[in-house]
Amino acid sequence: MGAGEREYRDALVREGLLIPTGVAGVYGRSAEFEDTVERLNAMVTDLCRDDGVTLMRFPPVLNRAHLEKSGYLKSFPHLAGSVHSFAGDERAHRELLATVENGGDWAAGLPRTEVMLTPAACYPVYPTQTGTLPEGGRIADVLSYCFRHEPSDDPARMQAFRMRENVRLADPERVRAWRNLWFERARGYTAALALEATAVVANDPFFGRGGKLLAQSQRDLELKFEVVVPIASDTNPTAIISLNYHQDHFGSLFGIRTADGNVAHTACIGFGLERITLALYRTHGTSRAAWPSGARKALGL
Amino acid sequence: MGAGEREYRDALVREGLLIPTGVAGVYGRSAEFEDTVERLNAMVTDLCRDDGVTLMRFPPVLNRAHLEKSGYLKSFPHLAGSVHSFAGDERAHRELLATVENGGDWAAGLPRTEVMLTPAACYPVYPTQTGTLPEGGRIADVLSYCFRHEPSDDPARMQAFRMRENVRLADPERVRAWRNLWFERARGYTAALALEATAVVANDPFFGRGGKLLAQSQRDLELKFEVVVPIASDTNPTAIISLNYHQDHFGSLFGIRTADGNVAHTACIGFGLERITLALYRTHGTSRAAWPSGARKALGL
Repeated sequence: MGAGEREYRDALVREGLLIPTGVAGVYGRSAEFEDTVERLNAMVTDLCRDDGVTLMRFPPVLNRAHLEKSGYLKSFPHLAGSVHSFAGDERAHRELLATVENGGDWAAGLPRTEVMLTPAACYPVYPTQTGTLPEGGRIADVLSYCFRHEPSDDPARMQAFRMRENVRLADPERVRAWRNLWFERARGYTAALALEATAVVANDPFFGRGGKLLAQSQRDLELKFEVVVPIASDTNPTAIISLNYHQDHFGSLFGIRTADGNVAHTACIGFGLERITLALYRTHGTSRAAWPSGARKALGL
Repeated sequence: MGAGEREYRDALVREGLLIPTGVAGVYGRSAEFEDTVERLNAMVTDLCRDDGVTLMRFPPVLNRAHLEKSGYLKSFPHLAGSVHSFAGDERAHRELLATVENGGDWAAGLPRTEVMLTPAACYPVYPTQTGTLPEGGRIADVLSYCFRHEPSDDPARMQAFRMRENVRLADPERVRAWRNLWFERARGYTAALALEATAVVANDPFFGRGGKLLAQSQRDLELKFEVVVPIASDTNPTAIISLNYHQDHFGSLFGIRTADGNVAHTACIGFGLERITLALYRTHGTSRAAWPSGARKALGL
């Protein structure tokens, strides 16, 4: 599988769609790649246009204390990105520069800051919703660059990528109905793009032996669905859309209540914008002008 | 000054334009704030529409080795953001979680990754330009979230913010002419927005005692100009646009040559999109509908 992924990545670089940076999974994007990302994002905006969403945009770093509280370090420590910075005096600076000069590891001397990298676009939303939701709950609309430390030659497994999400916060019935609505919308979205997509029950990549139990429980309860499409591998398709039902996890942690005073349930749907873009190039070829007319029309091309 | 900055920040939060995250200088943005940012960005696109720019978009993290090579840790170690991640086994994970549980500092056990946070949108460009430029050089067009570790109550001094940049790579004559062109364009840009802007010779916030000499030299050679506008303080205006001439610094470091074989010179112009947005709200008030008709027209409102 590794060789096929590298070959596909190298083809995207040759076509000029991705710009290598010397780090696996970290790429620049060309004008056309960006334009495709923006069009895919606009299609999501169209889908939720009449939902009364609250648009919020967060930067790619978030409050470390909030990510700790979310349990991210328990479940996904291996993917986390912690931001550290220099805080020393001129003498410490001279030592730092000497280590840089010698090609040494200067990072041990850097204390952590108050922020970590955002691992999924919805994490910054929950801490802002502490308190009582309006009648009927709320839908937050977010988009941000996300970071996951999983260096890979698979161009569909980037360390830095954009995720557009809608997040539902309400009573369990409304949350489940909203999830079903987006299940159908996601089907229509991939069909409009002429992608060979399949919806599957899925699990998050929980860390360690204990993580295996969490993953099995998540599957048993059907809390996570993914829409998968072949990108770098025909036999091992990649998730391009993910639907997650958190039950009362975030509502309990951050004290989010429905108008009738119960702990709010939450769910989210995430569109992996780079992955959907890559799925289009893989499925329909690297010449965007030659993509099927239906897909081009859906993209507004 | 601190009290005035906090007051202004709190007013922006009350108006719902900025969403606090519990970390100084890290905010969510409202729908209207984002819309203003996008309109300001589109105005920059209009200015460079006929320049034949090469559009590139990089994520908010970059290759650590490239930032080391750029000399960033020598000049601005106190602003840098280094990304670290967990790489231990299940036992180390249990220790990490125990430290999280006790509210301790768990970050010392995290080794650095291969990336750092992007401090200015143009840094990822130079390593991609190693080799010989086309006849006449090149103009790169970039935009990304940038990070600088300088927690502040001044809403105009965010730790995470967006910078739209154009970068000129060519012979010294073309680079200087391009800088003069953008000097005039920047004047027109702020005039169209009805901002009380002033262009001043400036210097970067170099670290330490040695940094004072670097700053003075930068001023003496007039290598950096800033367009400043009052935002959080009337007496201490904030830079919203920055024009920097690097001479052969990046050309030498990354082996960038002009078509006639000389080391390329480079310059960049950066638009601080959040700062220009804040300058508009500060100058014209928090009701966007009541902004001067000229500014509204320039924004396409």
